[in-house]
Amino acid sequence: MKIEVLRIGQRLVRDDRVTTHVALVSRAFGASKILMQEVNPEIKKTISDVNRTWGSTFEVEIIDNWRKVLKSKKNSFKIVHLTMYGENIDSVVDKIRQEEQVLIVIGAEKVPCEAYDLADYNVAVGNQPHSEISALAVLLDRVLQGRQFLKKQENAQKEIVPTKRGKKVLDKTID
Amino acid sequence: MKIEVLRIGQRLVRDDRVTTHVALVSRAFGASKILMQEVNPEIKKTISDVNRTWGSTFEVEIIDNWRKVLKSKKNSFKIVHLTMYGENIDSVVDKIRQEEQVLIVIGAEKVPCEAYDLADYNVAVGNQPHSEISALAVLLDRVLQGRQFLKKQENAQKEIVPTKRGKKVLDKTID
Repeated sequence: MKIEVLRIGQRLVRDDRVTTHVALVSRAFGASKILMQEVNPEIKKTISDVNRTWGSTFEVEIIDNWRKVLKSKKNSFKIVHLTMYGENIDSVVDKIRQEEQVLIVIGAEKVPCEAYDLADYNVAVGNQPHSEISALAVLLDRVLQGRQFLKKQENAQKEIVPTKRGKKVLDKTID
Repeated sequence: MKIEVLRIGQRLVRDDRVTTHVALVSRAFGASKILMQEVNPEIKKTISDVNRTWGSTFEVEIIDNWRKVLKSKKNSFKIVHLTMYGENIDSVVDKIRQEEQVLIVIGAEKVPCEAYDLADYNVAVGNQPHSEISALAVLLDRVLQGRQFLKKQENAQKEIVPTKRGKKVLDKTID
């Protein structure tokens, strides 16, 4: 399954850390790309540093107009919009799992009606306010059923060896 | 199961939005309390506003010294420390599910060794960097198996009716 994430809206500097978390979650939970507008361009460097150290070819694309992107992606992707007002995740997760290409839309602020209308699925990860970061993570975890964590990243310089206490890290740059 | 969350470290203003997200996730995913140090006291007001509108008696406790708190809680709670270096969540989730009282420890920055040593479980939600917000959400979703989203909040002024498109909200202050 090919997964991309589109983030709508951005409260500029105020949301910088949140933006980084959203990108890192997209990468670690199996998406291949995140598309965002009005972000600090530093985010591209942050993610490319993470890719270099921990592997993967995850991309950050900075866009001008989310509406255009959403409309053009709609031809080939199923649109999954995360909103606390949507259908329960339990009712739709099996259907989403069958899709070949999914664009997940998340809002950093109040999301315009158009996003609801363009979506194939408006999905609620619970009907209580929390965070687009947690909603994205739980959706991907439920859709991919944990397989996202088993994948070995290619071209990683470092790899963690899971351990009960402390830190074990393989340095793969040493032969 | 009684669940509390302890957040260690805080990059002050820089992390304000992230702190709010952590508290909202703790509340929406079934914890009864979050304990944090060095946060903007505004967070208490934000959460009490959310409690009033959407229900629940979730608490924010501002603490002085996380080490003291962790040591004293260790008498009655099992300590689950979330870290990308820990054991895979798949290996420990069944055991955690059997516990009666769990304190989940998350770090906003580099976490001192003591936290690893005091933990009963050092748990990795994947071995890639992402976010304490997503790690907390996925841990609680896996432990509670989605039941956290089915619970009706008491004393809510508003309640969402899940819907395929748009927003349906019951105003429970109107008889």
